Amino acid sequence: MPLRPALAASLLALVAAACAHSPVAAPARALTTQEVIDASAPSDWRQLDPGHTLYLQLPSGMVVIELAPQFAPEHVANIQALARGHYFDGLSVNRSQDNFVVQWGDPAGDELALRRPLGEAREKLPAEFSRPAQGLAFHALPDPDGWAPQVGFVDGFAAARDPKTGKAWLTHCYGAVGAGRAMAADSSNGSELYVVIGQSPRQLDLNITTVGRVVVGMERLSVLPRGGGPLGFYTDAGQRVPILAARLASDVPEEARARIEVMRTDTATWDAYVESRRNRRDEWYVHPAGHVDVCSLSVPVRPIPSPQG
Amino acid sequence: MPLRPALAASLLALVAAACAHSPVAAPARALTTQEVIDASAPSDWRQLDPGHTLYLQLPSGMVVIELAPQFAPEHVANIQALARGHYFDGLSVNRSQDNFVVQWGDPAGDELALRRPLGEAREKLPAEFSRPAQGLAFHALPDPDGWAPQVGFVDGFAAARDPKTGKAWLTHCYGAVGAGRAMAADSSNGSELYVVIGQSPRQLDLNITTVGRVVVGMERLSVLPRGGGPLGFYTDAGQRVPILAARLASDVPEEARARIEVMRTDTATWDAYVESRRNRRDEWYVHPAGHVDVCSLSVPVRPIPSPQG
Repeated sequence: MPLRPALAASLLALVAAACAHSPVAAPARALTTQEVIDASAPSDWRQLDPGHTLYLQLPSGMVVIELAPQFAPEHVANIQALARGHYFDGLSVNRSQDNFVVQWGDPAGDELALRRPLGEAREKLPAEFSRPAQGLAFHALPDPDGWAPQVGFVDGFAAARDPKTGKAWLTHCYGAVGAGRAMAADSSNGSELYVVIGQSPRQLDLNITTVGRVVVGMERLSVLPRGGGPLGFYTDAGQRVPILAARLASDVPEEARARIEVMRTDTATWDAYVESRRNRRDEWYVHPAGHVDVCSLSVPVRPIPSPQG
Repeated sequence: MPLRPALAASLLALVAAACAHSPVAAPARALTTQEVIDASAPSDWRQLDPGHTLYLQLPSGMVVIELAPQFAPEHVANIQALARGHYFDGLSVNRSQDNFVVQWGDPAGDELALRRPLGEAREKLPAEFSRPAQGLAFHALPDPDGWAPQVGFVDGFAAARDPKTGKAWLTHCYGAVGAGRAMAADSSNGSELYVVIGQSPRQLDLNITTVGRVVVGMERLSVLPRGGGPLGFYTDAGQRVPILAARLASDVPEEARARIEVMRTDTATWDAYVESRRNRRDEWYVHPAGHVDVCSLSVPVRPIPSPQG
């Protein structure tokens, strides 16, 4: 008797809704997640901006990362420069800490003299832990959050904001990608990147620059054997996983790009999706929670539907 | 420049505090997690009850699971009977779903005729989704929770309770172990077990019977390659990871038992630990969160300190 919880969003992602052309009508009853996706319109989905999409090629396959220039413009510009300079090619995943993060970059680590030069990218950037909330299309969630006064989504990214300070920031949810730093707040430059692989470490919010999120391929990073050294660093060079290449989607021929689209997070369909996660209506559930956490919501991803013909 | 967040509790676990005999004095300033652990007394730690500790032996090593008879007495009794009957020996991990659960049991799954007989264990048990809060030593956390009216710890287990219903239940945090079920609420019997390997799926709370938690060895389960089938089931028998044996610690010679102890969750030291996680005082942090989630708190584990001499 296998455990049969509702289909996870990551799975739903793969269920291309072939007949997804009817708008979401006012439902007679609450919809399941699958029903929301089945009823979505093409306009409920968007494609990633190729200039802000990073492909990380590992021996096991590709990881697709959506960058967040609206939250970390300087870091994203630097990551773009690093990718264009092929900086990451031949570097490696050097750290895997259970229930925390997987991190990649130069295995030379703190040995500054041994580190690969950054090329056209900058060594020094300002910390980008938050930004003014003004100017962001912040789509709030209905439920309260313990870590921040308000949580919601901005352009597909899980985010928080504080009306008192007027600041907004990306939240450290599963799949969030950040720029590793040393003690100094402004010691990150995007050449060391990490991704969250466990319970959302929200204590990192406002303490480090978050630069994007993994859209496809988390399972290529989350399963990497945990490192035996402090903080999950690999102690043996042979354990490191090579990065074959890191490229912006815009620098890859169009036919080689990932043919995916993601659900928009500012529509009535999104609100119906959120409600379907707040109160599961799938037959398996006997107790709808009446709540959802900003880090419990995976933004659905699917292959771009084929043109009708 | 490696990312240098505070040491995770799982790491702290391995830092045996050799001189842990002074009680926690009223601190002049807030303590870091490491300082709390260093200042803990022997009485702030406890050993696991061997009769309620399950050793899961995988090819990669051992997983130690603490069972929760106070929350799921019938399921725990059945798991004890299954372990004594060597039921799990030679069965396998059959499912690994990213950011959700890893599950083990009989690979025959729904093919009831092919399933291994349960021996002395029972096929049918009542659902144990919650229990009366009365009679439990519920040690509440200071922060609110979105999923439940109150959250805290009971005997080392992350838990929730509702004063209105008078019920208490275990929360689905990273490392929580539950009993898989089919559509019927009472269709679990402990022969199919799963462990949470991602963001806490709190929507499962009150929908399934939670039977324990992984104390040591999560990294042997969390890194298992994700399955390619629906819900992360392996599609190829060769991908399944064999369970070499599952034994109660009480059925293993004392010298073969795991020499570990865990921090008690009902002491002033625990409260100081919680505060050290609510507001990180480690030098790296510039913004203390002022909050902690019940699922962000790992109960520290360490080797049993050697006798002084």
